[in-house]
Amino acid sequence: MADTVGKTITCKAAVAWGAGQPLSIEDIEVLPPRAHEVRIQIYYTGVCHTDAYTLSGKDPEGAFPIVLGHEGAGYVESVGEGVTNVKPGDHVVALYTPECRECKFCKSGKTNLCGKIRATQGKGLMPDGTSRFRAKGQDLLHFMGTSTFSQYTVVADISVVAVKQDAPMDRTCLLGCGITTGYGAATVTANVEEGSTVAVFGAGCVGLSVVQGAAQNKAGKIIVVDVNNDKKAWGEKFGATDFVNPLELKDGQTIQDKLIEMTDGGLDYTFDCTGNVNVMRAALEACHKGWGQSIVIGVAAAGQEIATRPFQLVTGRVWKGCAFGGIKGRTQLPGLVEDYLKGSLKVDEFITHRKTLGEMNNAFETMKGGDCIRAVVDMRTL
Amino acid sequence: MADTVGKTITCKAAVAWGAGQPLSIEDIEVLPPRAHEVRIQIYYTGVCHTDAYTLSGKDPEGAFPIVLGHEGAGYVESVGEGVTNVKPGDHVVALYTPECRECKFCKSGKTNLCGKIRATQGKGLMPDGTSRFRAKGQDLLHFMGTSTFSQYTVVADISVVAVKQDAPMDRTCLLGCGITTGYGAATVTANVEEGSTVAVFGAGCVGLSVVQGAAQNKAGKIIVVDVNNDKKAWGEKFGATDFVNPLELKDGQTIQDKLIEMTDGGLDYTFDCTGNVNVMRAALEACHKGWGQSIVIGVAAAGQEIATRPFQLVTGRVWKGCAFGGIKGRTQLPGLVEDYLKGSLKVDEFITHRKTLGEMNNAFETMKGGDCIRAVVDMRTL
Repeated sequence: MADTVGKTITCKAAVAWGAGQPLSIEDIEVLPPRAHEVRIQIYYTGVCHTDAYTLSGKDPEGAFPIVLGHEGAGYVESVGEGVTNVKPGDHVVALYTPECRECKFCKSGKTNLCGKIRATQGKGLMPDGTSRFRAKGQDLLHFMGTSTFSQYTVVADISVVAVKQDAPMDRTCLLGCGITTGYGAATVTANVEEGSTVAVFGAGCVGLSVVQGAAQNKAGKIIVVDVNNDKKAWGEKFGATDFVNPLELKDGQTIQDKLIEMTDGGLDYTFDCTGNVNVMRAALEACHKGWGQSIVIGVAAAGQEIATRPFQLVTGRVWKGCAFGGIKGRTQLPGLVEDYLKGSLKVDEFITHRKTLGEMNNAFETMKGGDCIRAVVDMRTL
Repeated sequence: MADTVGKTITCKAAVAWGAGQPLSIEDIEVLPPRAHEVRIQIYYTGVCHTDAYTLSGKDPEGAFPIVLGHEGAGYVESVGEGVTNVKPGDHVVALYTPECRECKFCKSGKTNLCGKIRATQGKGLMPDGTSRFRAKGQDLLHFMGTSTFSQYTVVADISVVAVKQDAPMDRTCLLGCGITTGYGAATVTANVEEGSTVAVFGAGCVGLSVVQGAAQNKAGKIIVVDVNNDKKAWGEKFGATDFVNPLELKDGQTIQDKLIEMTDGGLDYTFDCTGNVNVMRAALEACHKGWGQSIVIGVAAAGQEIATRPFQLVTGRVWKGCAFGGIKGRTQLPGLVEDYLKGSLKVDEFITHRKTLGEMNNAFETMKGGDCIRAVVDMRTL
């Protein structure tokens, strides 16, 4: 047993002190886990657009100071009273979408959106309404129930899952958000049918994971739509059959029209992975009359709305969405890790950049570049 | 065999000569059916808001002169070459949503939106691109492939279905649109689950039919939302458990909030039967997070758009719609007629007014009143 058990740990973290400011590498205090809480030593974390969105100050629910990060893997340092699902030493992935298996949502069998700790998680607090982080004499907020930009973090026991120890943590961390979100959207939420036609708008980590999921389900045609022509090769790497750059259409043609033309009437499934509400509309309207489904995955900026003519729905198109791909983290994530180990789920291919904790701000800059699919941050190195 | 076979029939019809003008009862010529066409003597027709919408001139696709009407029952007077699905003397219901069983849509198993004659039907013509109606020396357009406001009409063979002869035609005509549209939306498109919660916005013929379908599927709570308090009793007649008048909410409460409060988090299924895009939004947003589905049935005015925050979809709500309730007319309508004859489908209860062909304009006026659910027009009487 580590001699840190029951004690406050002082470690390094990238702290967001205020909106629009760079992250600051600080010594922070991480309190011991209370009942039904788990303290994790984070080894690796991904950097995601949602972190950047909150840091930018555009998220009206964003509050500071806060420890960001929600795509992390590490091992369990210690557990609080009553924790039975993980034990010290387990290799784990943090889950921003928890799974309590007790609430109305978990029991419904219809959604992965566990409601048990939603209220406190939304406020940046642990389920008992307090924080486990302190720096410079003040409490820091938690982020998405995970806060993986710290060398140690504390999460609710329903917000963590143990996975096979032989899976490298610099890979499993990416299953904590981007890869699972896209792959699950294709294989769980849409459950793309064999031979069907699919269009994916936006070929970042999430979009390419949709492509991978659609290919896994044997879609007949998988069209990547992106304004960056480099994404053609990226799409092909994960199973895409076609690529369209909406900025290079012939005069007056909309992306909807182009896709409908390419698929003799429209797509069976479309996925928005951009967060742009105009793209979401195009994705719906590119669906085939009678049965086409459009799945919204991207997170739009505050206040933005989607719109279309209701005729699109009356004539059989379906508009839906999902968070974390519709995947139940505790139940389904271990299987994804096994798929990775068996070679049936690509993960390594998403990693384009590696950074250290000390380079965290640089990782954010890197993410904005068109050549970055995922930057993985080694949290043990400054 | 009637001595009219192969001949042009002169009969009475309510002709719409121009947008916004009253219908005019005229002698019109109805040509014999050509190959794969059926001439029907219409006995009864319902009057529907879609007829009024086109007559008003607000429908940008509406053209004149035209014979309106799409909710009709009668018997087959004669058939053209190659017609095998009905024969002279059959009691039939006209189908504005045809079913060819050959096109991509029919074969998909996913939709009732047959595509075979869509292009010509949309132009007000028979599948060969011509009209079978003439009056005052000019051709009249067909409407929705049915034109039931004439004592005789000609339809494509895929636009008609034979039903049991012991079902009265003044009842079966209503299965040609309103009742089937609502009932099918609840039992086929949504397939409401036992014990689930349902809200129906707008308690006209379609909305009350949704109520009936939800009750048939044993929904646990069926809330009628209407601005007319008389609709409370109407809802109860078909199985509604609750009624809300959105004009009588406490200060500042939206109908979404009220319904979410009444159902501990929102509804499993909501149905818009108003055609009002603001109501469509409310219907979506009143759905339960994680799984609530909203079905758009009402037809919005030209150019109107629906909107919401994409977060509504990302958190698991589904926005869809249907036409003719998702019912395949030739395959499923005969079963509805049998359900009526067995007493398991209410039809008589929808008929609040009876009119003659000569009173057609009065039937349109009546429809606009809050006390009219359905006016049935006897086409044989002037």
